[in-house]
Amino acid sequence: MKNNNASHSHPLLSPLLNGDRQALSRSISLLESQLDSHRLEANILMGNILSHTGKSIRVAISGVPGVGKSSFIEALGLLLTGMGKKVGVLTIDPSSKQSGGSILGDKTRMTQLSSTELAYIRTTPAASSLGGVAQNTRGSIKLCEAAGFEVILIETVGVGQNELEVHEMVDFFLLLNLPGAGDEIQGIKRGIMEVADALLINKADGDAVPLAKKAQQYFKAALHAFQSRENGWSPPVLLASATEGTGIVEIWQQIETFVALQQKSGDFERNRQQQEISGWKSQMTESLKRAFFKDPTVKALLLQLELEITRGDATAVQATQRAIDTFRKA
Amino acid sequence: MKNNNASHSHPLLSPLLNGDRQALSRSISLLESQLDSHRLEANILMGNILSHTGKSIRVAISGVPGVGKSSFIEALGLLLTGMGKKVGVLTIDPSSKQSGGSILGDKTRMTQLSSTELAYIRTTPAASSLGGVAQNTRGSIKLCEAAGFEVILIETVGVGQNELEVHEMVDFFLLLNLPGAGDEIQGIKRGIMEVADALLINKADGDAVPLAKKAQQYFKAALHAFQSRENGWSPPVLLASATEGTGIVEIWQQIETFVALQQKSGDFERNRQQQEISGWKSQMTESLKRAFFKDPTVKALLLQLELEITRGDATAVQATQRAIDTFRKA
Repeated sequence: MKNNNASHSHPLLSPLLNGDRQALSRSISLLESQLDSHRLEANILMGNILSHTGKSIRVAISGVPGVGKSSFIEALGLLLTGMGKKVGVLTIDPSSKQSGGSILGDKTRMTQLSSTELAYIRTTPAASSLGGVAQNTRGSIKLCEAAGFEVILIETVGVGQNELEVHEMVDFFLLLNLPGAGDEIQGIKRGIMEVADALLINKADGDAVPLAKKAQQYFKAALHAFQSRENGWSPPVLLASATEGTGIVEIWQQIETFVALQQKSGDFERNRQQQEISGWKSQMTESLKRAFFKDPTVKALLLQLELEITRGDATAVQATQRAIDTFRKA
Repeated sequence: MKNNNASHSHPLLSPLLNGDRQALSRSISLLESQLDSHRLEANILMGNILSHTGKSIRVAISGVPGVGKSSFIEALGLLLTGMGKKVGVLTIDPSSKQSGGSILGDKTRMTQLSSTELAYIRTTPAASSLGGVAQNTRGSIKLCEAAGFEVILIETVGVGQNELEVHEMVDFFLLLNLPGAGDEIQGIKRGIMEVADALLINKADGDAVPLAKKAQQYFKAALHAFQSRENGWSPPVLLASATEGTGIVEIWQQIETFVALQQKSGDFERNRQQQEISGWKSQMTESLKRAFFKDPTVKALLLQLELEITRGDATAVQATQRAIDTFRKA
């Protein structure tokens, strides 16, 4: 890829490309900032790194809260760093709406992995807008890649829309389940099962092994109900225990096999390009909203329209039309 | 409220105001349609009914999948229709992404309530955009009110963002929980607990009664951890069994007490006005996106920009800027 921004190099570019972790953290912070000046800087930087991105394997680790995503990521991360690979971990911290406090704030997570030289862990607080979080994750993946990280593990929130958003930015989507949870397939989970590239029954240790095997049979049967993939891949259902370290090598082998197949068929590159375009379109939607609500003429008009709606002098639809017309002419 | 659209009366207006259920269903379908001509009709109709809305009590029934929301709504609905009240029920049917199929499609729900003269039940399939679903629910509430429904029960999806969106459109938010589920408070659920006006331990019957009482104590303690409400309301934690019909009268009394308090203090009206404005703003965001992506000049440009991004001739940020500039000048 060509780089059109070569003339404006951001000061963080050089340390970032050298793998400086502090530069990486500061770059991600720029991306996540709500300040216009920071966004401008982030945009320059993202333009700068364009030709240095895309060279990692991007893996989503999904599953409901409590399934053990963090401890699994720690086990997989330690395996990979043990193999000499540089591993980036991006996790989202779900926050409560009213208090703004972080649920996991006081929980120390992935302590062993975080003290490993080859690993980088970044925890992002969930913002009010899910679209915004997804957008930032997309950018953070690229920043990690520019800093030389070879495998990027993305932990999902575990509920709702976020799972499918993350699916749109990875090469491999791994769904974690609990032993014996087979009966409780509900609502959104089915949609996630359909897009998962592999299922893993976590916490398959001790007394839970028989239950885990039962769950494995259940999920194998459930996956048969779905249409087979165009690429011929049948998502495997594996057992693992993050605490005992079993099954971790096996899942990494599956990920490597899948990626090799995809690369051979050209689907890997096609998928990446589609993700790039859909990522761009959702970024564009966010930018459009921002431009609209920050426009001074629109802002002034909205205050007036609020009054008119409250007094019943205008319907919401009329008010919307006036605001959009003003934006397009302002 | 004044009605600025009196000159353009939609043909559905008159039967709708007469409580014709078929007219109500057709009105909601217009609202949910993706066709521009239908949206235009829906806009006219929404303008027409403005002065006939707002006179119901709007209640959200929330809780994770499997907690028994449907059977609870049926029990509450039967109580209310038994009291002679007209009850509208709006439910969202979560759909899988790839197959587009409905999970609950084959499940017969609320059979008794749906055959009751005074009740109206509308099931809306979840669209790809959660924002869109919320917007339609907002409009559907008003259409039900115009048709004379006095209590509107809105069943949430049970996961993620949708819960908080629905909270922004109701007078009372009821969170259902299962007996013994106290330990599993996780992620998003805490944020929902904070905004709930009452908690209800459902399925508190038979062998589950001791567990239900334990859950009740747990949730009472948990609620104490939150800041007290400005209006002095302490959300009660009640037990109920939809199948045995116990606890249903009690929860309705709590809802009536809460609404009366809110009306007396003026918070009821203030809350409604704030919801109206925030609903308008999210509707405006959707309209803005639609205007952007449907603009012929923008559409043509986007195709060209996709190519440029794929070839690496433009960064996403540059492409976005050009597209938004074009939209504002087109």
